[in-house]
Amino acid sequence: MAIHPFDQITDDELRIIVKLVKDSYPNDKPLFAQVDRLDPPKKAMIQYLDAEKQGVAPPVIPRRGYAYFYIGEAFHKVLVNMTFKHIICDETLPDGVIGPMVVDDVALFEELSVNHPICKAEIEKLCLPDNIHVVCDPWIYGTDDPNEKRLLIQCYMYLANKNHSESNHYSLPLKFSPVFNGITKEFVRIDYLPSGADEFVVNETTKWDEFPLVEYHPDLTGITKVREVKPLIISQPEGVSFTVDKHKIEWQDWTFYVVPNAREGAVIYDIHFKGRSVIYRLSMSEMTVPYGDPRGPFHRKQAFDLGDCGFGVNGNVLGLGCECLGVIKYLDNRRVTATGEVEVIPNTVCLHEQDAGILYKHVNYRTGHKVVARRREFVVQIIATVANYEYAVQYIFDQVGEIKISVRATGILSTMPIDRDVDVNYGTLVGPRVMAAYHQHLLSFRIDPAIDGHNNTVVYDDVLRMEENTKLNPYNVGFYTERNYVEKSGFIEQSPFTNRAYKIINENVINPTSKKPVGYKVVMPARQMIMASPESFNTKRAKFATEQIWVTKYEDDRLYAAGEFTNQSHDDTGLAQWADGTENVRNTDNIVWCTLGFTHVPKPEDFPVMPVEMHEIGITPFGFFEKNPALDLPQASNATNKSVLFEENEKSKLSTTQSSCCKKPSL
Amino acid sequence: MAIHPFDQITDDELRIIVKLVKDSYPNDKPLFAQVDRLDPPKKAMIQYLDAEKQGVAPPVIPRRGYAYFYIGEAFHKVLVNMTFKHIICDETLPDGVIGPMVVDDVALFEELSVNHPICKAEIEKLCLPDNIHVVCDPWIYGTDDPNEKRLLIQCYMYLANKNHSESNHYSLPLKFSPVFNGITKEFVRIDYLPSGADEFVVNETTKWDEFPLVEYHPDLTGITKVREVKPLIISQPEGVSFTVDKHKIEWQDWTFYVVPNAREGAVIYDIHFKGRSVIYRLSMSEMTVPYGDPRGPFHRKQAFDLGDCGFGVNGNVLGLGCECLGVIKYLDNRRVTATGEVEVIPNTVCLHEQDAGILYKHVNYRTGHKVVARRREFVVQIIATVANYEYAVQYIFDQVGEIKISVRATGILSTMPIDRDVDVNYGTLVGPRVMAAYHQHLLSFRIDPAIDGHNNTVVYDDVLRMEENTKLNPYNVGFYTERNYVEKSGFIEQSPFTNRAYKIINENVINPTSKKPVGYKVVMPARQMIMASPESFNTKRAKFATEQIWVTKYEDDRLYAAGEFTNQSHDDTGLAQWADGTENVRNTDNIVWCTLGFTHVPKPEDFPVMPVEMHEIGITPFGFFEKNPALDLPQASNATNKSVLFEENEKSKLSTTQSSCCKKPSL
Repeated sequence: MAIHPFDQITDDELRIIVKLVKDSYPNDKPLFAQVDRLDPPKKAMIQYLDAEKQGVAPPVIPRRGYAYFYIGEAFHKVLVNMTFKHIICDETLPDGVIGPMVVDDVALFEELSVNHPICKAEIEKLCLPDNIHVVCDPWIYGTDDPNEKRLLIQCYMYLANKNHSESNHYSLPLKFSPVFNGITKEFVRIDYLPSGADEFVVNETTKWDEFPLVEYHPDLTGITKVREVKPLIISQPEGVSFTVDKHKIEWQDWTFYVVPNAREGAVIYDIHFKGRSVIYRLSMSEMTVPYGDPRGPFHRKQAFDLGDCGFGVNGNVLGLGCECLGVIKYLDNRRVTATGEVEVIPNTVCLHEQDAGILYKHVNYRTGHKVVARRREFVVQIIATVANYEYAVQYIFDQVGEIKISVRATGILSTMPIDRDVDVNYGTLVGPRVMAAYHQHLLSFRIDPAIDGHNNTVVYDDVLRMEENTKLNPYNVGFYTERNYVEKSGFIEQSPFTNRAYKIINENVINPTSKKPVGYKVVMPARQMIMASPESFNTKRAKFATEQIWVTKYEDDRLYAAGEFTNQSHDDTGLAQWADGTENVRNTDNIVWCTLGFTHVPKPEDFPVMPVEMHEIGITPFGFFEKNPALDLPQASNATNKSVLFEENEKSKLSTTQSSCCKKPSL
Repeated sequence: MAIHPFDQITDDELRIIVKLVKDSYPNDKPLFAQVDRLDPPKKAMIQYLDAEKQGVAPPVIPRRGYAYFYIGEAFHKVLVNMTFKHIICDETLPDGVIGPMVVDDVALFEELSVNHPICKAEIEKLCLPDNIHVVCDPWIYGTDDPNEKRLLIQCYMYLANKNHSESNHYSLPLKFSPVFNGITKEFVRIDYLPSGADEFVVNETTKWDEFPLVEYHPDLTGITKVREVKPLIISQPEGVSFTVDKHKIEWQDWTFYVVPNAREGAVIYDIHFKGRSVIYRLSMSEMTVPYGDPRGPFHRKQAFDLGDCGFGVNGNVLGLGCECLGVIKYLDNRRVTATGEVEVIPNTVCLHEQDAGILYKHVNYRTGHKVVARRREFVVQIIATVANYEYAVQYIFDQVGEIKISVRATGILSTMPIDRDVDVNYGTLVGPRVMAAYHQHLLSFRIDPAIDGHNNTVVYDDVLRMEENTKLNPYNVGFYTERNYVEKSGFIEQSPFTNRAYKIINENVINPTSKKPVGYKVVMPARQMIMASPESFNTKRAKFATEQIWVTKYEDDRLYAAGEFTNQSHDDTGLAQWADGTENVRNTDNIVWCTLGFTHVPKPEDFPVMPVEMHEIGITPFGFFEKNPALDLPQASNATNKSVLFEENEKSKLSTTQSSCCKKPSL
């Protein structure tokens, strides 16, 4: 089957790139950080898609890819024409532009952080008993020095139960932290972490005498009585309502492509609903998690999980019946190891249907007749582990043209050591010697809209009180909407108390019923944005995190909200440059960037493993249709849905074991 | 079985009350508006519940009920001791205090509005063809005149297809509106509705010459191609995880009582999680929907759906596989007709489990081992139809101690007539001659907290930037929380940009891990509150709708946010009185009132029947537990969950019919 321009990079293509790079540097060992394909240029792709629709031969678009790699300490980026197998260009990035960390080296730094002679000597001061060992989380270094040119790794150190691989080291953070050169692996120094009442006094390493571990693994929690949860089975005996043709999905009058990649996790292309264009490209564009603990070195705790290492390459291998329930279709991802080997990450994106309650209902009270349709959803989910945290990102499609981006944060809080009887007002005590500092999750989602075409406009509508005591409004109850147009690149201020609604419209297509331009609404609740000072590196590097919604002109290379290279960056080479107010963004090909933010004040219940915190962006038709587009759904019926009464189910249930903890229900 | 003080009123008790009233007025025909039980006094109930827990004989608490009824035009309220079968007191409410509308009379007003001679003459002016008839929605009259003492009914009139009972009359609003005396049924006057470019000029009734109906019923939409939605079956073959003992529910270490009633729909009492007290009573307390169309008579469009008529009495009869999916337990409600007959509303509250994705997950990237638990929820749902609109209210319990109140608005927009080529900035055109005015849904939920006991305190925590360039905060990245205590009754201002978090705490119980008082957080996104002027009747009657969260001292009779009698009220006899800043509410028995508000700017997609608009309040543990309380859940496993791969499901699916529209999936 011919390759489609949207198709994921193939194993062969990855090997082509790797070989080309290695052949370019026969005397060096390139250290690969990331290899993947580029998008086809949009202009060519639009022609391609139009040709497909018309059933004519589409233009040839050469497949292009890129590689980030290190030659010695020099950071390189190559662009490769994979179709014709040649290097387009090979750029050595300027001094100070640091590439992503080499994910495969994490194990090496863990090992160095305990076995390097200086670290080993430090550990010996702890006088640890036989059953306790040191565990390391190598971390992105962050930024506080514009003169730092080296890729550095900050190793956060912890203790754990040596006798079980899943012992929760996060509950026992240590007070020293080695720093290594991320490329040369050289030892740089040891940082000492503050933990006391005098908040910025750090400690020498001395004998460690307490090991109050807070465990989460079932083998270690000490919990003997497990809550009984009766199975809830989701089945689709007549098949599913979606089709999968390599990357192309069709479901309930939607069509789109789901393509996993190394950096963004999964991208959704060419989204159409009921034959009409909605979005050209939808993706997570960046994510940063700055910490509010002001004391060094925690001021540098601010990873950019996409730019610094990659969301897709950290994608979980998902398991049936674990992360997704029902009838599941999986997609694989692929990456390249540090030495250039191709590795598949299997079953990392899952696709499935789910039921989500009623979609619409009305009862004619006069007759008792009702119309009711249930809301079926289609989920595209990817979950990535970034050291301690997990993020589950879902793109959820419904039957009326809405897409919901849903993010669930779970996993384990990042922790700092704290001494007994000490408390701070920028962190929560989550265990006897452990504190979880306040932090923020700030995610950028990129919407490249194509509402009935590529020339779109962003507007915002406020609901305002009418002038009082007028002929129109004599009772002073009236309110109306006022629309503003985003003419130039920039951001829109949040305004929850005017019910500000962000919309993406096509001014060239008028809805015959509402008599207004067709559009979609972007729904985000008002949120606190980045708290670090505007002059701090933390904020200078992440302009996207200062405002909730941005609009820029479209360019092919405007993909990542904070810029292409975020690791130890000094400033933002993304929105800070593209949203500078100079370019026209009205009625043209533009991009909308949404910042989904939540300030995380940890609670004890978040430890040792965190119940999901859920946050959403809604992208929903607003005047796109002349009326409810789901009148063509079947009415809900139990002939189809086969629900049963509690009383009957209790009588007929299968008893696998007679459980003494089950009370007999009173019927 | 002995009756429990929380138990729903019984048929016998309803009959006792009706008989006592009728016997008191042997020469009159009481017109019953509402009959139900009162709550047991809290002080006595606390003793009762304590006795139950200790296994000793509980005190006797006589069951008491009330009735609202009319004797002639006089509005009465009686209190009845149902246990001893006598009237406690019979109060004639003062002139101007108007009771709820008599729901059973709706059919009568529909009939009067077309058959009363004056109305009939008006209709004749329309010169309607044979297949079109007039349909009426009798409405709450609202308030604009402090001297109006009569209970009035405003009849909004529409056209529909006479040949089908489910023809959508809302798509053809007429321009005249009769008003009747709600008790005597006397004709009062006809109002004429504005519809033109000159917005406040109203029209005489003339020949109707266009009939563009916008239909939703499958028989009438003209839609021939129905989207195929393959069944998604939810089953629990080993039984469910909840038990039902009359009204008492036990599920996943929760216990609580679910009791339907006439006004609030369903109330949840005595909520405990893992043996600890959380909430004494949880309920919807009022709901008002003011319209933003400033022109008379629409300025009076502002129903209070609980106080004006009752949410429970308007509860839908739910059907298996329609509103709820899976294994469903139903509860009935009961009401009294206008003439005092007992009527059961069967299957009006549904209870069931549902799966809601992952609850927590962590992967140890070093070993690949993961822990993952799925999030099971327990749903208590009731759906009421109030003329055109439906509201589905769900109380959703999870396995970590959280309760989510979820409201889905659906049904049909309330519409106004509009002439061709006219547009307004306070409404949306949803059809050729029909406009849906902007409005607001403002719901009050009442939380009577009992976090580890009855003396609770409400606080709010803001996240603020640390002072810059200090020894503690040299890099200017720090942020901290600042707590404020609600000392006196009143409200808390919204403050989304300080991440303001509302919490209910027990200052007398300190969490040994976090070293702070145990508590729960109330999560509501920032929202626009009521837009009508503070001096308008609309706002004076609904103080609760002006702010998002209120705290008052507890009293037994403080149940309804806008007061007991809202129909055509002039002011607020609820929060306006109780939240006046005089009473102490700190570390005492208090009540928290949450206003869930959304301004509804209709979109064409909302018509003719509206896809659900979903809004939530979260009530979630915050420092209530020392750590994640769900570590005792079983790990997710496919042996239990029985998910299947898409490819295998497609091979093994049952083909009931060979559908030509099904593409074969590429495997």
